[in-house]
Amino acid sequence: MTELEDELRAIVGPAHVLVDGDLRAPYETDWTRRFTGSARCVVRPGTTGEVAAVVRACAAAGVPIVVQGGNTGLVGAGVPAGGEVLVSLTRLNRVEPVDAVEAQVTVDAGVTLERLQTHARAAGLDFGVDLAARSSATVGGMIATNAGGIRVLRHGSMRAQVAGLEAVLADGTVLTRLTGLAKDNTGYDMTQLLAGSEGTLAIVTRARLRLVPLLPARAVALVAVADTDAALDLLAAAREQLATLSAAEIFYPDGLELVRSYAKLPAPFGEPAGAYVVLECAGRTDPTDAVLEMLATSDAVIDATVASDRAGLDRLWSYREAHTEAISAAGVPTKLDVCVPLGELSALVTELPGTVAAVTPTARLIVFGHLNEGNLHLNVLDTGEHAEEVTDAVLRLVAAHRGSISSEHGVGRAKAPWLQLSRTAEEIAAMRRIKTALDPAGLLNPGVLLPA
Amino acid sequence: MTELEDELRAIVGPAHVLVDGDLRAPYETDWTRRFTGSARCVVRPGTTGEVAAVVRACAAAGVPIVVQGGNTGLVGAGVPAGGEVLVSLTRLNRVEPVDAVEAQVTVDAGVTLERLQTHARAAGLDFGVDLAARSSATVGGMIATNAGGIRVLRHGSMRAQVAGLEAVLADGTVLTRLTGLAKDNTGYDMTQLLAGSEGTLAIVTRARLRLVPLLPARAVALVAVADTDAALDLLAAAREQLATLSAAEIFYPDGLELVRSYAKLPAPFGEPAGAYVVLECAGRTDPTDAVLEMLATSDAVIDATVASDRAGLDRLWSYREAHTEAISAAGVPTKLDVCVPLGELSALVTELPGTVAAVTPTARLIVFGHLNEGNLHLNVLDTGEHAEEVTDAVLRLVAAHRGSISSEHGVGRAKAPWLQLSRTAEEIAAMRRIKTALDPAGLLNPGVLLPA
Repeated sequence: MTELEDELRAIVGPAHVLVDGDLRAPYETDWTRRFTGSARCVVRPGTTGEVAAVVRACAAAGVPIVVQGGNTGLVGAGVPAGGEVLVSLTRLNRVEPVDAVEAQVTVDAGVTLERLQTHARAAGLDFGVDLAARSSATVGGMIATNAGGIRVLRHGSMRAQVAGLEAVLADGTVLTRLTGLAKDNTGYDMTQLLAGSEGTLAIVTRARLRLVPLLPARAVALVAVADTDAALDLLAAAREQLATLSAAEIFYPDGLELVRSYAKLPAPFGEPAGAYVVLECAGRTDPTDAVLEMLATSDAVIDATVASDRAGLDRLWSYREAHTEAISAAGVPTKLDVCVPLGELSALVTELPGTVAAVTPTARLIVFGHLNEGNLHLNVLDTGEHAEEVTDAVLRLVAAHRGSISSEHGVGRAKAPWLQLSRTAEEIAAMRRIKTALDPAGLLNPGVLLPA
Repeated sequence: MTELEDELRAIVGPAHVLVDGDLRAPYETDWTRRFTGSARCVVRPGTTGEVAAVVRACAAAGVPIVVQGGNTGLVGAGVPAGGEVLVSLTRLNRVEPVDAVEAQVTVDAGVTLERLQTHARAAGLDFGVDLAARSSATVGGMIATNAGGIRVLRHGSMRAQVAGLEAVLADGTVLTRLTGLAKDNTGYDMTQLLAGSEGTLAIVTRARLRLVPLLPARAVALVAVADTDAALDLLAAAREQLATLSAAEIFYPDGLELVRSYAKLPAPFGEPAGAYVVLECAGRTDPTDAVLEMLATSDAVIDATVASDRAGLDRLWSYREAHTEAISAAGVPTKLDVCVPLGELSALVTELPGTVAAVTPTARLIVFGHLNEGNLHLNVLDTGEHAEEVTDAVLRLVAAHRGSISSEHGVGRAKAPWLQLSRTAEEIAAMRRIKTALDPAGLLNPGVLLPA
């Protein structure tokens, strides 16, 4: 064992090869505490060249690698299965100056979303993806999982922000494509192939990212509606009438209660409702009047509260954004992240409680998510020993509604056994051919995404 | 030879296997008349199942395939090199009803852009990509080349419109992914891998396409500016001030003269200028006032004319859109389609004439293109026997400015020898590994994209 570790120490320096169990521990369990595994060692390379050398050393020794960014993933893709070298990319943390003419920036994979946002905003621009884990989630991890979040409605998912990549293949080859041309049809789009491949094809080390205009004027409406159908009616009106719409989120009464109890928040409305929608508009000028006008003309609105000042925005958003933490504080949830066509959303929401209860009547289901994309985060608490059964039953229900078993979190280890519910046998076979072509020895993230 | 043809006749029917030279001829030469080659036969399958059967028959016989849509490609990717079975997809021409809730539609690969546009508009929506070859260019070909065009500024290239695909691999396997979920992170994005792969990895047979809002109110400004730098200043002002900006195109005095002579158009301005910019805005309400206001405050504007009625829009657009036909009428051009970072655009435009003249002083260079993306279409007339030398000199100049040798037309046969100017050896090697994984026998479009 020590021979490889000695090689790794020679590459990254002794301080950045962590063999001791206490030092490895923070890397070996994910944020949800659901996934844990033992790494042979943790290696923290500081440059792309060091990543490539680490990969070559592991390849020569025949030791598999698991890649980790901010360790905020939700499907166990960054946690070892057992015995891998865990490559942590957080020391890859350089940001280049913002290119204002192209509205792009090149950053290292280990840069956090929050730092990227701060960097872009200092140049009068912004980053198109935002999500609650921003203080820890890294650019590399967000590319590997094709992260989504609350601004997909306006700017698309992470892959839409990526104009180019630098990545290390399983044989140590470095692919570099960071010019960030607006249009470039010279062969296969390796950038888009690697985005969402969950570290199974290459290790992303740098990215050329598109930036978006900084829209300082925001208005948020928290709207009480009768049910999911009413929420979709409200969404249709908002999309039709609000050119500046930037987010449309949904949550339900049981989630609201959990959040209020956890975050000590007052009831947003005098009367409880069947569902709640958060709409956000962002523009160069205050969009509040347009929001109020739309709300006044929508039959779906039972009650609504609108804010456009910083404190008010944060307060209204907190009802939605505190869901993840409130759920985590209540226990270790079975987390599912699904997407169905909008026409199937209401039926899915209606059928979910019965599907869960049929497996384990005492489980608690908390549903919230990104309304515009039909993307629901399903959190099942108190599943006890029935986590796999609940997962199986729910994902089959989703597939029956023509949905995806992973909308934005990825497949990882958690969903790999159910991949065939969302991809055909022919697609999975084609994916395996690509995996084998780029990583014939199966060195990178074995067991992640493609079922072993 | 006849054994394979008999098999093909049994699959698609005798009327759809064209062996006679006169019948094959329209398929064997491209629209520019620059690329021509002899096919063994032309096969016109009518369903995805027939495409798969044709591919299996060719694979069994070891006969390569060249795939063709509307034959409007500009890099010879749809024209045989010699001896292939040419698979024409124009009989795949079904359109499904528009899904208004999801703003998506599923259509066959052989449907023309114009028909798709008509179909979408009848449902109150529109398609995000538009280009001058709309009456012949097909959806499948546009996906294979990741077509661009005049609305990329607003909606992105063709790949951004594709929510899912059906495609036939080189072994006859059919990949089907047409649900069109807004977010779906379940493994490698085969759709994005196939988009832009120029028929070398699979034959696209159907597509699930995103639609965009139909924006009926348009305003177009034709603006005279001093030079490329002034055009970029105008663009920056337009992007900053015009939220509804949907196109920004550039052309130059020699192109204008050619177009005026060909299309019998009057001079747009009393005085000639160094460069001309077409700006288009599209919205739900008339954007004319915003356009006039922006023009009034931009120092870059020498003169401008604005239209918002149908006839006026067509008239102003014709100065830009007639370029391709006017050039084609003047001869067989050497067509190059390049992209550079915006900061390099002015230098490139300045250096191009000298680079061309150094090869052949009598050639005529006509430059126009998509300003927002730094994408120039370079048409060199009267290159005589120096077409390859001109191509080589110009593409090397583009690469020196960190540009792409193919911005939206693709690589095809025309640019394959220069691929290494835009992609590293490591990238090309990775692309070859993917090609070999999905098409080990090299059956699909041999000689296209990847140098033989």
